[in-house]
Amino acid sequence: MGRERLHHPTVGDIELDRVLGALSDPIRRDILQRIASDGPQFCGDLSNMYDVAKSTMSYHFRVLRESGLMHTEVVGKHRRVTRRDGVIETLFPGLLLSVGLPPGEGTWRESVDVSEPDAQITN
Amino acid sequence: MGRERLHHPTVGDIELDRVLGALSDPIRRDILQRIASDGPQFCGDLSNMYDVAKSTMSYHFRVLRESGLMHTEVVGKHRRVTRRDGVIETLFPGLLLSVGLPPGEGTWRESVDVSEPDAQITN
Repeated sequence: MGRERLHHPTVGDIELDRVLGALSDPIRRDILQRIASDGPQFCGDLSNMYDVAKSTMSYHFRVLRESGLMHTEVVGKHRRVTRRDGVIETLFPGLLLSVGLPPGEGTWRESVDVSEPDAQITN
Repeated sequence: MGRERLHHPTVGDIELDRVLGALSDPIRRDILQRIASDGPQFCGDLSNMYDVAKSTMSYHFRVLRESGLMHTEVVGKHRRVTRRDGVIETLFPGLLLSVGLPPGEGTWRESVDVSEPDAQITN
């Protein structure tokens, strides 16, 4: 059985419109804050922390992943999320800090080479 | 006949959600960029610069004003817009620069006192 792979935008595919749209929701910012404070999080655990429908949480996770702000790793039957602070900080320096989300724990380790914008995540 | 006054959020009413939402659109960012480059702009002139409906432009102007990013002044039958860089920079330092919109020309002059968040714009 193949390991499930979720789509993540490459450095060259990350768009400011989507990043700002993703950051414009307080629950999505709070998810990113928790990852920075407490390290990588399982989506199931995060979903229990907010008083919203599971489908809404799934939507938030997808928006964060597709914007490029978050990395989602499939671990068995679970999904574990980290922040893609490296690429975001490279593309939009200071943005995360300016909205109260400075990098901390839970940063996905990936090489960021803006000269190869289509480079795939290698991890 | 009274002078038309448009509502602008006070420092204490400006919300990050709305600021980021307003910034997430390329036309709205472009409007802010033009003001910084060329100084105060008339809405009518700006509307002619983009290939979208007038109603869409009115929506963009309203979103920018209600978010706190832009000030709209009624000048006779026209509306002239400037940027509220002082309040935005005070509330979210570095945000404008991080999204490619550093302060420049066309900044609305208003005193920014975060200790009096309900202070009305005095100009």
